[in-house]
Amino acid sequence: MSNPSFSKVLVAQGGGPTAVINQSMVGVVLEARKFHCVEKVYGAFHGVRGIVNEDFVDLTQETTHNLEMVAETPSSALGSTRDKPDLKYCLDIFRAVRAHGISCFFYIGGNDSADTVRIVSEQARAANYPMRCIHIPKTIDNDLTVNDHTPGFPTAARFVAQTFMGANLDNWALPGVYIGVVMGRHAGFLTAAAALGKTFPDDGPHLIYMPERPFDFDSFLTDVKANMERYGRCVVAVSEGISDIHQRPIANSLVAQVKKDAHGNVELGGGALADLLSKIVKDKLRYNRVRGDTFGYAQRSFIGCVSDVDQREAREVGEKAVQYAMWGERDGSVTIHRTGFYSVSYELSALEEVAGKTRTMPDEFITASGTDVTDAFRLYLRPLLGKGMPDAHRLRRNAVPKILTAS
Amino acid sequence: MSNPSFSKVLVAQGGGPTAVINQSMVGVVLEARKFHCVEKVYGAFHGVRGIVNEDFVDLTQETTHNLEMVAETPSSALGSTRDKPDLKYCLDIFRAVRAHGISCFFYIGGNDSADTVRIVSEQARAANYPMRCIHIPKTIDNDLTVNDHTPGFPTAARFVAQTFMGANLDNWALPGVYIGVVMGRHAGFLTAAAALGKTFPDDGPHLIYMPERPFDFDSFLTDVKANMERYGRCVVAVSEGISDIHQRPIANSLVAQVKKDAHGNVELGGGALADLLSKIVKDKLRYNRVRGDTFGYAQRSFIGCVSDVDQREAREVGEKAVQYAMWGERDGSVTIHRTGFYSVSYELSALEEVAGKTRTMPDEFITASGTDVTDAFRLYLRPLLGKGMPDAHRLRRNAVPKILTAS
Repeated sequence: MSNPSFSKVLVAQGGGPTAVINQSMVGVVLEARKFHCVEKVYGAFHGVRGIVNEDFVDLTQETTHNLEMVAETPSSALGSTRDKPDLKYCLDIFRAVRAHGISCFFYIGGNDSADTVRIVSEQARAANYPMRCIHIPKTIDNDLTVNDHTPGFPTAARFVAQTFMGANLDNWALPGVYIGVVMGRHAGFLTAAAALGKTFPDDGPHLIYMPERPFDFDSFLTDVKANMERYGRCVVAVSEGISDIHQRPIANSLVAQVKKDAHGNVELGGGALADLLSKIVKDKLRYNRVRGDTFGYAQRSFIGCVSDVDQREAREVGEKAVQYAMWGERDGSVTIHRTGFYSVSYELSALEEVAGKTRTMPDEFITASGTDVTDAFRLYLRPLLGKGMPDAHRLRRNAVPKILTAS
Repeated sequence: MSNPSFSKVLVAQGGGPTAVINQSMVGVVLEARKFHCVEKVYGAFHGVRGIVNEDFVDLTQETTHNLEMVAETPSSALGSTRDKPDLKYCLDIFRAVRAHGISCFFYIGGNDSADTVRIVSEQARAANYPMRCIHIPKTIDNDLTVNDHTPGFPTAARFVAQTFMGANLDNWALPGVYIGVVMGRHAGFLTAAAALGKTFPDDGPHLIYMPERPFDFDSFLTDVKANMERYGRCVVAVSEGISDIHQRPIANSLVAQVKKDAHGNVELGGGALADLLSKIVKDKLRYNRVRGDTFGYAQRSFIGCVSDVDQREAREVGEKAVQYAMWGERDGSVTIHRTGFYSVSYELSALEEVAGKTRTMPDEFITASGTDVTDAFRLYLRPLLGKGMPDAHRLRRNAVPKILTAS
C-alpha cells in the first residue's frame, strides 16, 4: 500500500470534554498547516457523527490568533459525541472520509475513540485506501493504558485538589462531615487527586474511597466515626464509581433500594450518591452537620483553573500526532511516557494496545487501609498539577488563658 | 459614657465562610496593631461561641507575613459558627468580653451577625461599659441592606460565572439540558451572576430562575422547550431558594412530594432540587441528555478563583472598621457605597439599618420575563468580578460543501 499523499487532513473530538482538549486540536491544525503537502485541514463537528453527516468545517481558513484563543478555551470546540461506532458506523465513517479525499484522520478521545480509530484504520487497509489514522489521547479519568497519564487529567486533578483544599478549610471553620463525590466510573485517579489538597497533617480529605477497592457501608461508618472522634470533623472524597464486593456500583444499589421503598416513584439523579451517603451518616451516626456535594461538570470544563503542564502536553500530543503521520509509516496512538522528575517523551504506540482498554490505580498508589493514597501517588501527581498551585495557611494558636472558666 | 481606652481589641468571624473573609480579619489585626493604644489583639475561635467559651487566641503574637498568607486563604481562619445568639447568649458574650477587658469588638458576618453586634452594643451601653462594637460586612448572598454589595459576593459571583461559562461550553459540545443550582435562599444575586458567563448571543444560561420571582413548573417546562427548539440545547441557572406563588420553597415542596410517595422513607439532600428538576424535564419533555448539578460549598470556599476587587474591599472594610472605632464616637456597621464606574467609599452606618434585614434583587435588575437579568445588572456586577476574567472563544464555521448527502 502506498503512503498517503496528505492533501486533506481531518481532525475530530470525541467523548467527554476536557479543559485542554482544544490544545490538542489546535496542535494538529497548526502543525498540519506547516506541511506543504497539506492542502486543507478539516474539522468534523460533533466527532464521528459529524464525519458520517459530512458536517465538516475548513480550519485552513481559521486565523492562527483565533486558534490560539480557542486552544485556551475548555470543552470541545468542534463539538463532541457519545456515539460508540459499531462496524457498520465505522464503514459509514470510512465512506465519508473517502468521498472527501481525506488522507489523514486524527481522533482526539479516550479508549472508545481509540477503538474507533483502530477499526477505521483496519477498513482503510482492507480497502487499500491510503489513509493515516492517529489516535490522540484525552480523558480526565486517566484510564488509558500505556500512557503515564493522559491530557485532561492533570487539569481536572488540579480542580479536584483545589476544591478539596477549599472544602477542607470550610469544614475546619464549621466542623462536621463533608462528602465530595468525584467523577471516575472505573479508575480512582481523579478522586485520589483530592489528597493533593492537604497541607497540614490533620487536613482532609481524611478518607478517600476509590473504585479499585470494594466499598463496605459498615467500614465507611466506622472510618467516619473514627475521624470525627479524632479531629471533630471528617472530609471524605468518594468516587462516583465505588462498588461493593460483588462489583455492583453503590450508586445503582442505592437507587434500587430507594426505588423499592418508593414503589417505583423515585428516580435518583446526579447528586444521589452524595445525598444518600450523607443520609446514612446522619441516620446511623447522628451527626448534625453532614453535607454531600457532587462536583459535576465543573470537573471537566470549569474555565480559569488549568495546569500549565497539561496545556503544554495536550498541545504537544496534537503536534506529535501530525509529525508521526507525516514522517512515519504506520497508524497508532500517541502515548505519553515519563522520563524524569519531571519530563516526558512521546511515542506512537499500536492502536490495539490502547483501544477499548482501561487502566486503574496501581496497588502501589493505594494504602493498605484502602482509604488513602501513598507518597508514590503524591510524587506521581504533584508535577502534573503545574505552576502556581494555591496554598492554604493557618493562624498559629497562641491561646489566651481563660478567666471565667477552668481551662 | 467615656470613650473606650482600646487596650484590648477582639475580632471574630460568623456565618458561612467566604473566599475573602480572612482579608477583613487581617485588615482588622494589622490596622489595630498600628495604634499605640492597642495592647492586645485577640481573635475568638468559632465566632460568638468562642467568645462565650473564652476560646481566644492572641493575634498580637502572629507574624505579619503569616497574616498576609492567611488573608489569601479562603474560609474563616478563626473558625465560624451557625449560632444565632438570643438575648441570654448575648449577655454571656458581654460577660466574657468584660472579664477579659475587651474595649473593642469587631464581628465579621452577615445580617444575623450585625444583629448580634447590635444587641451586644446595647448591653454595653446599658451597663455603662465602655466598648466600641463594629460590624464588618460579609456574605456571598449579597443580601445586606445599605451596602452596594458585600465582600465575599464578588468572588462567589466570579466562581459562578466561570462555572457557567464552562458548563455552557460543555453543553454546546454535548447538547442537552443542563441545570445548575446556585446558593442563595432569599436573594438571587449569586444565581444572576451566571449571566456574566455569556459571551456569544446564543450562549447559556438561557434561563435564570431567582427567588425574587415565583417559580411555576409549567412555565419552566415551556421555557426549556422553547430554548431546546431554538438552540438545540438549554442551560438553566436556578437559585436554591426559588419559591412558588405562595412563597413556599420549591425544594421543600419536592421533598414533601417525594416523602409522601416513599411513605416517609426517603429524605432528600443537597442535590435534591437539581435532581428533581432534571427528572421533571426528562419525564415531561422526553429529552435524553438532562443533567443537574448543585454547585455546593465550592461557591464560597474554592481556592484559586478570586476577584481582586473583592480581596481589596474585604481588606479595606476591616481596616476602616478599626479606624471608625479608634477615631469615631459610635458603634455601627461598615458599609460599601459605589461612587463611580468603578470606585467605592466606606461609611459607618447605624447597626439597626443592617441588622437582621435582607436585601433582594431590585426590579430593575430582572427582565420582564422574570428569567433573565438586565443590562443594568451586568453593569452593576462586571466591575466587581475584577481583573483577568477568562474568555470563551469559538471556531468560525467555514462549512465544507457536502458530497454524499444533500446540504
